[in-house]
This record gives sequence, C-alpha cells and structure tokens, in this order.
Amino acid sequence: MKAQNTQTFNSDDFAQWPGRYRANLLNKVSGFKSAHLVGTANPQGQHNLAMFNSIVHVGANPPYIGFVLRPRTVPRHTFSNILETKYYTLNQVHQGIFKQAHQTSAKYDQGISEFSATGLTPGFWEDFYAPFVKESHIKMGLEFEEYHEIKANDTLFVVGKLVMLSLPSDVVNEDGHLDLASLNTVAIGGLDSYYQTSLLETLPYAQP
Amino acid sequence: MKAQNTQTFNSDDFAQWPGRYRANLLNKVSGFKSAHLVGTANPQGQHNLAMFNSIVHVGANPPYIGFVLRPRTVPRHTFSNILETKYYTLNQVHQGIFKQAHQTSAKYDQGISEFSATGLTPGFWEDFYAPFVKESHIKMGLEFEEYHEIKANDTLFVVGKLVMLSLPSDVVNEDGHLDLASLNTVAIGGLDSYYQTSLLETLPYAQP
Repeated sequence: MKAQNTQTFNSDDFAQWPGRYRANLLNKVSGFKSAHLVGTANPQGQHNLAMFNSIVHVGANPPYIGFVLRPRTVPRHTFSNILETKYYTLNQVHQGIFKQAHQTSAKYDQGISEFSATGLTPGFWEDFYAPFVKESHIKMGLEFEEYHEIKANDTLFVVGKLVMLSLPSDVVNEDGHLDLASLNTVAIGGLDSYYQTSLLETLPYAQP
Repeated sequence: MKAQNTQTFNSDDFAQWPGRYRANLLNKVSGFKSAHLVGTANPQGQHNLAMFNSIVHVGANPPYIGFVLRPRTVPRHTFSNILETKYYTLNQVHQGIFKQAHQTSAKYDQGISEFSATGLTPGFWEDFYAPFVKESHIKMGLEFEEYHEIKANDTLFVVGKLVMLSLPSDVVNEDGHLDLASLNTVAIGGLDSYYQTSLLETLPYAQP
C-alpha cells in the first residue's frame, strides 16, 4: 500500500456515526481474529453451536484459552450450557465450512440444533460431554475454569482449560510448529469477512 | 485439504511434551490472531513498544478492546506504564513492518526504547500521552478501563476504551466495512508465524 492521507477520529466521532457503520468499522479495526464454533450441550443433551471471533491464548502449560461472550445477546445458550455442564468445544473454521459456520449465527427457534440446521456433524470423545464438529480440522475440548465480568459493558471473559485436542496426523513438525494455512484455516475480519492466508515467514526468537 | 487420519491428545499428553514443542503447538492450535504493537510511555516519558497477539473486540458502542498480558514475563514495562499513565496505543502490524515489529520482543537493556532499537517512529496525537507507531496503517489510542486477574495462571485481561483512531483515508466503505487485506495487515499464528491474507467473502447477516 502506498503512503496516503490519514484520517483521525475520536470518541465524539464514534458516538455520532450511524450504528451499523460504527459496529462494522469498530469490529474491523482491531485486526484479524480466529473463527471458531463453540459446541455445547444442555443438561438434557440438546446440542448448541455458536460462532465466536474472540478466542485468545491465555497459557500453554497448562493450556488455557479465553473468549469474550455477550450474555445478553446472541448466542443465548452457550454460556448457560458451559456453566451447567462445565464442558465445551472449540472447533476451528476452515474454507470448506465457513459458510455453514457463519450460518450458525442465525436466530433459530428453540429446540432446533445449529448442527442439523447447517448440516454440520456432531462428534464425541469418550467421557466428554460436549459435541465437537466432525468437519473441523482442529477440535479442542475445554473444561470451564473461570469467568470475569467486564464492568465497562457487561460482557464476560470466559477461561477454560484445554483437556482434549484432535488434529490431522502429520501436520505438526518436530518443533511443534503447525502451518494454519496448510489446513485452510480462515481468518476473520469483524463479524462477517472471511480470509484465506498464506505464510509469509516464521521468524526466530528475537535477540537484541 | 483431503480427509486424513486424526490424532487425539489429552492433558496427560500435553504435560509430557517437551516444553518448546508444547509452547509452539498450543500457541498455534487456537487459530489466527492479530499482531499489534502496544505503545506506552513511562511517567518520565521513556517510550516502550511491545508485540501482542491477544487483542480482542469487547464492544463497539462505546468501543472497548481487551488483551491478555503476562505480567511476570516479557513485556515488562507495558502494564506498569498503562497503570501509571492510563493511556496506551495499539498499532496494527502490516507486511511492511512485521520484521521490525517482531524484533521488539527482544529483551533490550533498560533505557533502550524498542522504537529506536527497531527503527520504528513514535508519533503523537495532541493531548494523548502514549506514542503511536507512525508506520502502522491503523493506530488506536486507548484509555485504560479495568483489568482482571486470571486465577488459573496469573495472567491479566486488560480492557481499554478506544478514544482515538487514525487510519488511511478512503479505505472504509459507506457501510463501515474495511478490507484488512487491502492494508496488507498480517495475521499471526502462535508467536512467530506471519501470514498475508486475501478476502474470500463478506457474508450477509445470517437468517434462519
């Protein structure tokens, strides 16, 4: 990209933008996110699947993963299922399923599973309550650990411990590196723009 | 990618992996992240710049952004500067600066600014204490809002309110959409693998 003029906005500008313009732009300025389907089941065994773009790495040993959740909007059932059953899955979205994954964000009637509504297939590990998505290349099983209420806007930061991990054979090298592009993993901009990627470079540990 | 065999691992396996293998793999399985440089200044005005891959969208109206920080490891000064001065910047990393951005993670001696060490240029908005990175295409100024201690592993989730936003003219469409690929914004896998992207599709709001 060539150098070009810069625009600068402040809080007063944000407040005056039309709601949809503000939501689209402010979801996108914070950069690429991962796209994951969160799989849960309620205590009666009904499956739920919801799209999240806010998964972050919290630690590797032991492994913890966090995500931001808006309890008062869509998705409605994910958090209550996590609290009641303690288990959930994170299923990485790739190019072959991104349209079905996006479709899980539609407001289906009570009693309709997003799995059957979108044609994705629930799968199970032995002794793990929540369903994973069979079509995902990387499937993670988490045990709920803690949540924090963000006072600023009543969202939640939910942290779980990674206890199960399924991934294709022969995609991890001897140093533990995994090329997400080779799995066709998508990156997401905001809530709706899906991107394919290609590796620029893996850089060595930086030294002064 | 063709269907292929799947491997499944559990907590016992994770604990037995060599440390570096575990860190590499478990940083990468949670998918693409954004790469941002966090710019701060200490009360004496010395600048600090540190790379983070854990930025998440917390809200759009008013706009809040969060990130995960490990206070007991690198980067050492970012959190204390945020607490003492209340202001920080998030500067999006693009293909033209990803090597310099990665280099900020080296452990420089006290008194050396990562700006001068890596050749990036500090810039300032009027009445905003923390420096931004002039070379970034998207520069965000945040006011510290709150932090939460993750009990599981003593990391922190830091939330700030977006109060300043600079971006190139003519990159936002009338609906507020911004194509991150057109800005050469990179996505990051784990802590070291940088990716370029291209837009697959922007999908409409999902309906049942």
